[in-house]
Amino acid sequence: TTPITATLFPGDGIGPEIADSVKQIFKTAQIPIEWEEHYVGTEVDPRTQSFLTWESLESVRRNKVGLKGPMATPIGKGHRSLNLTLRKELNLYANVRPCFSLPGYKTRYDGVDLVTIRENTEGEYSGLEHQVVRGVVESIKIITRQASLRVAEHAFQYAKAHGRERVSAIHKANIMQKTDGLFLKCCREVAEKYPEIKYEEVVIDNCCMMLVKNPALFDVLVMPNLYGDIISDLCAGLIGGLGLTPSCNIGEGGIALAEAVHGSAPDIAGKNMANPTALLLSAVTMLRHLELNEKADQIQNAVMNTIAEGKYRTVDLGGKSSTSDFTQAI
Amino acid sequence: TTPITATLFPGDGIGPEIADSVKQIFKTAQIPIEWEEHYVGTEVDPRTQSFLTWESLESVRRNKVGLKGPMATPIGKGHRSLNLTLRKELNLYANVRPCFSLPGYKTRYDGVDLVTIRENTEGEYSGLEHQVVRGVVESIKIITRQASLRVAEHAFQYAKAHGRERVSAIHKANIMQKTDGLFLKCCREVAEKYPEIKYEEVVIDNCCMMLVKNPALFDVLVMPNLYGDIISDLCAGLIGGLGLTPSCNIGEGGIALAEAVHGSAPDIAGKNMANPTALLLSAVTMLRHLELNEKADQIQNAVMNTIAEGKYRTVDLGGKSSTSDFTQAI
Ligand SMILES: CC(C)[C@H](C(=O)O)[C@@H](O)C(=O)O
Ligand SMILES: CC(C)[C@H](C(=O)O)[C@@H](O)C(=O)O
Repeated sequence: TTPITATLFPGDGIGPEIADSVKQIFKTAQIPIEWEEHYVGTEVDPRTQSFLTWESLESVRRNKVGLKGPMATPIGKGHRSLNLTLRKELNLYANVRPCFSLPGYKTRYDGVDLVTIRENTEGEYSGLEHQVVRGVVESIKIITRQASLRVAEHAFQYAKAHGRERVSAIHKANIMQKTDGLFLKCCREVAEKYPEIKYEEVVIDNCCMMLVKNPALFDVLVMPNLYGDIISDLCAGLIGGLGLTPSCNIGEGGIALAEAVHGSAPDIAGKNMANPTALLLSAVTMLRHLELNEKADQIQNAVMNTIAEGKYRTVDLGGKSSTSDFTQAI
Repeated sequence: TTPITATLFPGDGIGPEIADSVKQIFKTAQIPIEWEEHYVGTEVDPRTQSFLTWESLESVRRNKVGLKGPMATPIGKGHRSLNLTLRKELNLYANVRPCFSLPGYKTRYDGVDLVTIRENTEGEYSGLEHQVVRGVVESIKIITRQASLRVAEHAFQYAKAHGRERVSAIHKANIMQKTDGLFLKCCREVAEKYPEIKYEEVVIDNCCMMLVKNPALFDVLVMPNLYGDIISDLCAGLIGGLGLTPSCNIGEGGIALAEAVHGSAPDIAGKNMANPTALLLSAVTMLRHLELNEKADQIQNAVMNTIAEGKYRTVDLGGKSSTSDFTQAI
């Protein structure tokens, strides 16, 4: 089989170390992927003064599949977060975050297994804000039929492909009747095409209360941008934090850009201490997107078993292992 | 001592039963309060066709202190939630929700003890929404200096009066730099006047993750309207749900309107099954507002002890007691 070319943005801080860990594990597991590596991050290219080159973007557009490490926001005025810039440039319209308990890593919750699917391009992230008069500012939330249908469609397709039973649309349409109302209307339309998948609507405040009381009440959750930001982090907290949760962005033309959503942790960068789990599990979602499911299971199980065994764990997981020893164990 | 007159809106559904329970307990505890009862709810007055009369509003404005049960939203077009109407009419600018574990009522979390203070009049609740073109809708979030200063001031005053150490302002100013940025700016200004109280700023997604991982990281939280809606429900979930958490609204001219924030539970209304805890603990916040702290402690302890003992518990708490037996036990 000819190898698949995938873009790799190692990112900032601990990014390069955890990306190395993924590369090693992929090599050992004989995954037929060739990495096309590009630097995107807070360090400016001295010749072009660029943080993000056209070549990097083109690489993802061409390969349609990629993996990205953490990126910090460049310092200085007028720089948007690179994460947001990538979402915008590549039209990454759905952010998919599976969230599952890692057996052996104890939190207050057992057997969590849900997936948040977040609209990733509009809503409260429109960037439209202004001062009306002194002391009065407004920001505008945009909801479109196109983006809502697109993310809803992805949620139901995902549910179907992964044998999931139910999609819950999360909203605050009792207050934002027009915006969240349109979002719900689109979800309902899509739901009708998938009669085999249950559909329900849950108000965001109630959803958060139910999630902390009993996460097993949920399966796949789909929602506008900001609610997705909030709820995906809440869910990550249930199973131990952002260092353990994978994420994958789905974009125009079938792009899948997997991404570790934790920070770049500059304080421990270069110290061989970082936990590669989130990036590795993100790479696993990339494999599933490529329908390399056997390989995906193999790696996911190796991560789960290593953490469950407990002999090799990185410091953030209460262990003493270096990134490389943990990687070796996996 | 001359009794204090307080307004009572029993509300809909289970409202009248749980209000009765509060009245009984207050009487037994010899609380010097005389209730001025008004009906506000989904049932229209046949003569005036009104859900909410001028007299009801005037009663709160005159007494400056009141207690409200659950109110459902009247059915039919053009009716706003009565809860929102009261907030608007009485300018109830801060919603204060203490959230503490009830010893003996087991959840995944022990020793939770925090207070959320929510801006209650603007933000995402502005009601400003419209369709821009077909399939594109927007809603407007308003943040004003006046409302932000006012709620921040209340948060710090509350922290000071209740011996609390820290106020955390919750925001998403990394995305909504102007609106949430103004909110933070106001919080910082107020914080400077209270050097003895620690001040920090936490991004909402991170806050939710931290809350589920370790609620003890927080003390008093202050935030814009929608974040308050979300986080106060999340917090309620930590200790068992909205049936157990008190709430008090602070309004213009020193008004304090305590409120049970759970629903009206029409399915069990009139069956002597409802749990009066949230309304009773809300009434306790009203007593604290009136500086009747001894009486407040007395009732709060009676509730806590009854639940801890476990002999008398309502059905929602896993027991078999009727509302009246539970009330009797308290
Ligand atoms: C860093 C921040 C801009 C970003 C967001 O709000 O989307 C982050 O929280 C995320 O979830 O990827
Ligand atoms: C019922 C609803 C309009 C209300 C709100 O969103 O504020 C409720 O959730 C609350 O917290 O009081």
